[in-house]
Amino acid sequence: MKPRITLITLGVDDLEAAVRFYRDGLGLKTAGIVGKEFEYGAVAFFDLQAGLKLALWPRASLAHDSGLPLSRPGPSGFALAHNVASRTEVDAVMKQAQQAGATVVKPAQETFYGGYAGYFQDPDQHLWEVAWNPQMIPAEE
Amino acid sequence: MKPRITLITLGVDDLEAAVRFYRDGLGLKTAGIVGKEFEYGAVAFFDLQAGLKLALWPRASLAHDSGLPLSRPGPSGFALAHNVASRTEVDAVMKQAQQAGATVVKPAQETFYGGYAGYFQDPDQHLWEVAWNPQMIPAEE
Repeated sequence: MKPRITLITLGVDDLEAAVRFYRDGLGLKTAGIVGKEFEYGAVAFFDLQAGLKLALWPRASLAHDSGLPLSRPGPSGFALAHNVASRTEVDAVMKQAQQAGATVVKPAQETFYGGYAGYFQDPDQHLWEVAWNPQMIPAEE
Repeated sequence: MKPRITLITLGVDDLEAAVRFYRDGLGLKTAGIVGKEFEYGAVAFFDLQAGLKLALWPRASLAHDSGLPLSRPGPSGFALAHNVASRTEVDAVMKQAQQAGATVVKPAQETFYGGYAGYFQDPDQHLWEVAWNPQMIPAEE
């Protein structure tokens, strides 16, 4: 196996609402919902950094395709981190998420590793961390 | 918010077992468990493509840090996709995962979008898809 993740798929309850959150609320770019011509095919892709996309797909479709039972999210089962270049940017992204309808789980604050971070949940309870970590500053594109 | 995910954190029950699965079983590279000097700090990072890391962190630590209740995973709540360059490579990675102790959820087969893919769960029930998608062939490093 190569060290590569191509796609992160988040199961959602309401695809159109989830697209509005990520596209209109967080400002991520998408061509919108595609694949409607297939049963269980409707999905929205968002381009992230090169080689990585985020996909929103109804939970029912992911359950159908994988064969797993339909399940509610385990809110503390995983997290996606969005590292930024400054504390100020952490505050700005947390505010943007809140205004977009996210649930602020933990307001931005100092972290045990000497950084500054907060957590929010998207409308489907998927957990995001917004972090400034002096040891993990992202390269700006 | 910039279109960027820096870190994908998977909550695990047994950190050492999870490291063995990803490092020894799947062959991903890690410096091993670090951060043991902090309460709730023990974590293992795996480098993926540039700008992206996978982190294994005990569920209890993720729950503690985020303030969310400790929860079991929702098995069909999200998926990580590992896209590869050929059908043969799908078969090889699915076999590697199975030998590493993964649960094969759906053996590799033709997909509705004209690709070839299978699903497995890691020891903590996190869902992975191994896919050859003619419209999403990864650039080889």
